[in-house]
Amino acid sequence: MKDNLNLHQDRYFSSNPKEKKIAQHLYSKVKNLPLICPHGHVNPELFVENMPFPDPTELLVIPDHYLFRMLYSQGVPMESMGIPPLDGSETEKDHRRIWQVVADHFYLFRGTPTGMWLKHEMHDVFEIKKKLNSDTAMEIYDRICENLRKQENHPREMFERFNIEILSTTDSPEDTLEAHQKIRKSGWNGKIIPAFRPDSSIDILNRNWKKTIDKLSEVSGIDCSTYRGYIEGLEKRRAFFKEMGATTTDHGVHSPYTVALGKTEAERIFNKAQKGKILLDDAKQFIGHMLMEMARMSVEDGMTMQIHAGVYRNHNKKIMDRFGPDMGCDIPIATNFVNNLKPLLNRYGNDRNLNLIIFTIDESTYSRELAPLAGHYPAMKLGPAWWFNDSREGMLRFRRLTTETAGIYNTVGFIDDTRAFPSIPARHDLARRIDARYLAELVAENVIDPNEAEEMVIDLAYRLPKKNYKFK
Amino acid sequence: MKDNLNLHQDRYFSSNPKEKKIAQHLYSKVKNLPLICPHGHVNPELFVENMPFPDPTELLVIPDHYLFRMLYSQGVPMESMGIPPLDGSETEKDHRRIWQVVADHFYLFRGTPTGMWLKHEMHDVFEIKKKLNSDTAMEIYDRICENLRKQENHPREMFERFNIEILSTTDSPEDTLEAHQKIRKSGWNGKIIPAFRPDSSIDILNRNWKKTIDKLSEVSGIDCSTYRGYIEGLEKRRAFFKEMGATTTDHGVHSPYTVALGKTEAERIFNKAQKGKILLDDAKQFIGHMLMEMARMSVEDGMTMQIHAGVYRNHNKKIMDRFGPDMGCDIPIATNFVNNLKPLLNRYGNDRNLNLIIFTIDESTYSRELAPLAGHYPAMKLGPAWWFNDSREGMLRFRRLTTETAGIYNTVGFIDDTRAFPSIPARHDLARRIDARYLAELVAENVIDPNEAEEMVIDLAYRLPKKNYKFK
Amino acid sequence: MKDNLNLHQDRYFSSNPKEKKIAQHLYSKVKNLPLICPHGHVNPELFVENMPFPDPTELLVIPDHYLFRMLYSQGVPMESMGIPPLDGSETEKDHRRIWQVVADHFYLFRGTPTGMWLKHEMHDVFEIKKKLNSDTAMEIYDRICENLRKQENHPREMFERFNIEILSTTDSPEDTLEAHQKIRKSGWNGKIIPAFRPDSSIDILNRNWKKTIDKLSEVSGIDCSTYRGYIEGLEKRRAFFKEMGATTTDHGVHSPYTVALGKTEAERIFNKAQKGKILLDDAKQFIGHMLMEMARMSVEDGMTMQIHAGVYRNHNKKIMDRFGPDMGCDIPIATNFVNNLKPLLNRYGNDRNLNLIIFTIDESTYSRELAPLAGHYPAMKLGPAWWFNDSREGMLRFRRLTTETAGIYNTVGFIDDTRAFPSIPARHDLARRIDARYLAELVAENVIDPNEAEEMVIDLAYRLPKKNYKFK
Repeated sequence: MKDNLNLHQDRYFSSNPKEKKIAQHLYSKVKNLPLICPHGHVNPELFVENMPFPDPTELLVIPDHYLFRMLYSQGVPMESMGIPPLDGSETEKDHRRIWQVVADHFYLFRGTPTGMWLKHEMHDVFEIKKKLNSDTAMEIYDRICENLRKQENHPREMFERFNIEILSTTDSPEDTLEAHQKIRKSGWNGKIIPAFRPDSSIDILNRNWKKTIDKLSEVSGIDCSTYRGYIEGLEKRRAFFKEMGATTTDHGVHSPYTVALGKTEAERIFNKAQKGKILLDDAKQFIGHMLMEMARMSVEDGMTMQIHAGVYRNHNKKIMDRFGPDMGCDIPIATNFVNNLKPLLNRYGNDRNLNLIIFTIDESTYSRELAPLAGHYPAMKLGPAWWFNDSREGMLRFRRLTTETAGIYNTVGFIDDTRAFPSIPARHDLARRIDARYLAELVAENVIDPNEAEEMVIDLAYRLPKKNYKFK
Repeated sequence: MKDNLNLHQDRYFSSNPKEKKIAQHLYSKVKNLPLICPHGHVNPELFVENMPFPDPTELLVIPDHYLFRMLYSQGVPMESMGIPPLDGSETEKDHRRIWQVVADHFYLFRGTPTGMWLKHEMHDVFEIKKKLNSDTAMEIYDRICENLRKQENHPREMFERFNIEILSTTDSPEDTLEAHQKIRKSGWNGKIIPAFRPDSSIDILNRNWKKTIDKLSEVSGIDCSTYRGYIEGLEKRRAFFKEMGATTTDHGVHSPYTVALGKTEAERIFNKAQKGKILLDDAKQFIGHMLMEMARMSVEDGMTMQIHAGVYRNHNKKIMDRFGPDMGCDIPIATNFVNNLKPLLNRYGNDRNLNLIIFTIDESTYSRELAPLAGHYPAMKLGPAWWFNDSREGMLRFRRLTTETAGIYNTVGFIDDTRAFPSIPARHDLARRIDARYLAELVAENVIDPNEAEEMVIDLAYRLPKKNYKFK
Repeated sequence: MKDNLNLHQDRYFSSNPKEKKIAQHLYSKVKNLPLICPHGHVNPELFVENMPFPDPTELLVIPDHYLFRMLYSQGVPMESMGIPPLDGSETEKDHRRIWQVVADHFYLFRGTPTGMWLKHEMHDVFEIKKKLNSDTAMEIYDRICENLRKQENHPREMFERFNIEILSTTDSPEDTLEAHQKIRKSGWNGKIIPAFRPDSSIDILNRNWKKTIDKLSEVSGIDCSTYRGYIEGLEKRRAFFKEMGATTTDHGVHSPYTVALGKTEAERIFNKAQKGKILLDDAKQFIGHMLMEMARMSVEDGMTMQIHAGVYRNHNKKIMDRFGPDMGCDIPIATNFVNNLKPLLNRYGNDRNLNLIIFTIDESTYSRELAPLAGHYPAMKLGPAWWFNDSREGMLRFRRLTTETAGIYNTVGFIDDTRAFPSIPARHDLARRIDARYLAELVAENVIDPNEAEEMVIDLAYRLPKKNYKFK
């Protein structure tokens, strides 16, 4: 009993009977709708060969910094979780032993979204009916291995079984999108499209920037070593991405600073960067200017533009030096959207050809800055609760803090934003439950009518992402 | 059925039966109390001639930036809503057509305070019993027109029927308050008083500043082109406003920065401003200094001083250039009250002659700065949830984030702060319901006793605003 | 009836029946557990002579700035509450009269934690069964006086009756810990230990700094007038404190800025400070450097390190000048932990020998900065809701905003942090009720299982503080 893994059918709804009943009804309207996945980091290669996933550790632990950061915070060395040091020094290779370590510490995830997603995933995707703990670790490991070998759990079959209508990956301009091309040619009709994320071509502080530009020249067939060529190269790659089905661009920036530099000034900084001499402030100006350029191109080619701002990447220098980026050391920082976005919004914010979706992890900006901005500028929408706030309480706070000022129609529905493919249904399910719960409260308190809530719950789960990411 | 407009009698209360029952009881204690409206932007001219309101579009749409900003954010052009461009170029003149556009988009207001107020207003003030949507738009338009012609819906009759005990307008020092004088002389005994808001005389960056000062000289009979004359002129106007019934001043500032400049320094900046040469930092110093001066005058004449801080006005340059200010493009910004108010609070904060009410839209300052300041300085009180946060959830957050540190007795009750006269009862009703709900939760969770809650709910609805705005 | 003071057995639980029932059960698991008090400001002298407390005013009013700040904010002069001016000028000496003033204003505390604690204290510790108000003031005063004389209410007996397992005081390095030594020698076995708080030795801006350093030389037997001696002196005192049972250090700082200065630079600033010439920025650098040094020493001696950051001390200059520090004029300010703590965390944050507990009153940093940092760095933990947020709603917000990212296991349980000894049980009881309530909600909404909640509620109340403060 105590060790049974149960997914309660009413989980995450309010336990107030009146609200719960309404939430059940609203959830029933969306629970089986197809999943729209307009932004995420799933590796498209998975679907080219459609090879089975190797084992639970390889699938669920080693690539998931949400998971191993928590164990690390409690003193479990990165190496015990099989994370490979950059210098090739030793790391745990025994995946069963790693799984045991995770199981021993699984209590750390009580009350966290990672815990909720994993439970859902194990129960519904891998048919595990026991809780993960020290005692059950090996039994569950074996069971998952066994299940992963079944045809129904191969990537393409999962994709279909998950009822994914469309899945966007995230790709660099210099990427040739070969995986996407192969999938297209394979005859399989799962819809997987790329998204244009040019951070590496734009961040002139990155030590690999020059190499990236060389590669950009190569794939675009345009000499990108001049500012003019660089802009043309990016434009040409956008066109190619669009041809390949892309409908969006994405931009990860420290701050959402935007600025319109004159051509000469942009060129001057670009040329200095080509010579490897960049001042910090020049970099800030250049990146701010390129966001502006990207908005201009979006106005021209109609691609939805996303900005993910306000993260201090790789805060832990020791971990960065030893293991590289994306190791769970990215920390949100305070952001200012009002001043930083002003130049961009003043130039393009009234233009209906632009659809600009802003994401933040600084919740203090929800009601103060973002909902008021999205509730005014036609071009701006508000992305859902992101990263650490993509959680039961985090999503509720997002709705409470934004709806009254921006309404739900200046938001874009749920975005899973994950690299953990098998967690996708769990993430959408959690979001749909929370939206049902939020709307149920509004109905129970006579703020909206039941029939309005029925429309809204479908808008949030399905129609708004489709519309805002321009999926036909 | 689906199209009936119902105002549920228990709306906005918790649906938890125990809390709801207590809330019903508490609400019954305040629901019919007279309305105290100590700060707002209703045009006093309405009550001079007591002409009927023309039509729903003129009354409810064109002047309400809360409303048209939401439609604009979804791509409806300002001109389709009849907003007049400054250059006199075309705008929609057909009020029925504008009303139809609003009705077509009314679903955008689901879950927003504007939606709640409008529903209340239509149902209770204009006796509309159908929901506003594309189908019902014209029928409702006609019905409202018809109702507006009735004597009971003329401004003075509404004022009485709304049970308004006192209503303050907001006026510039150079205003002669003719409307107020006429109302006084008319024999009608609705109590409408002015408030002294000298922003235009103080903001030396404003391009009309010199003209304002000339006008100030004219109405005060004092030469205000010298710093000394300017201060005297303002003092004289305060005295006049006070004579006319004013009990408050109000100050809208970008940041609540205060500073005590020496007379020479203040004079130097003033003289430069007279010559039209102002540096940004000089302006900041001067405005900060004038807040100080206003506090000094309040200590002397006993007028309650309000500061509304932390708004980036007219953020959208295109809209500002084409339509002017107050067009829904004002965006809150992060504020710092602790350092900025220190000079003022250090000089006058211990003085019981000063009653300083601080408003913010930066909710992160509620528990961090404002409740601790108001919970210490005798002169400082905390204004209620303002603007975007004057909403069902926003008001609840305000109470939750301030009461534990400052108590309710360092707050000042509800302020409607509206220019939309017929929305006044809806706004007070929403606030009274939310306060009843908040207190009901405290009772249900045994934090306070029922009899304490009964006192508190009346304090919040009636006694605190009366006391803090010095209405006898 | 109306005047009975009742402590409802279900107070502070949700009134939703399902949640309440679970909360009752969870609370029953912790309600009688011993109290762990790892950080606070109780005067150890109390337990040396074990003299009875004099009277309610002396015990509950004069030393409690939480209490008198609220009355002061409503215009009650400090002198009416018996606060002694520094210059020796008059203050109210009649403790009955002071008590009457407090009783007359006790309604101000409705809904505040001070109100909740005092009610609990009066009811459970002093057996008062009537509410405090103007009418009952004198009767209650007499009754408390009477009860204070009883042996069971002498400090040591209270300590035992409160079931305190361990109580830490907060002490300066130059303190000889005589009281602690006397308690040890007395044969009484109440466990009272010191904590090392070197703010006065580190804050070179403090006008008494040089005197403090002289005293440090004296008690350490090391010449602390050189930088090297100063560091050695501090190390020696830490060793002494540790010998005396201390397991923690504590650091109260304006901002959590940290920096690693070279020895020469640190020495240069130290020498200037010895000559009384300190620049503001030098002071900031030095304090940031000393936090670094303290972390180094903690790595070496294993003492848990606490940082309490983000308070503008003595904001009200008039009160500071007239009455001194700790008079209710400390105001939280915005803090930035991400950049400020980076140097310290980069150097020591991966070291399991360090246990660094961070406290904030800037709630906007909970989900944005602190939970992400604590959810990654092995050395960092998150202290509970502090000061103004150590309250019914404040603690709930803390759990809601941190658990999903950091889990509960990167937090350290409840800390009472009080100088008001008889309020200790009330404070722990409130915290235990809120944690039970929070977990009950998670159970009722099927986020965690009942048996998980049972473990967690005990972890929060008992095991986590014991572990994190290294009590065996």
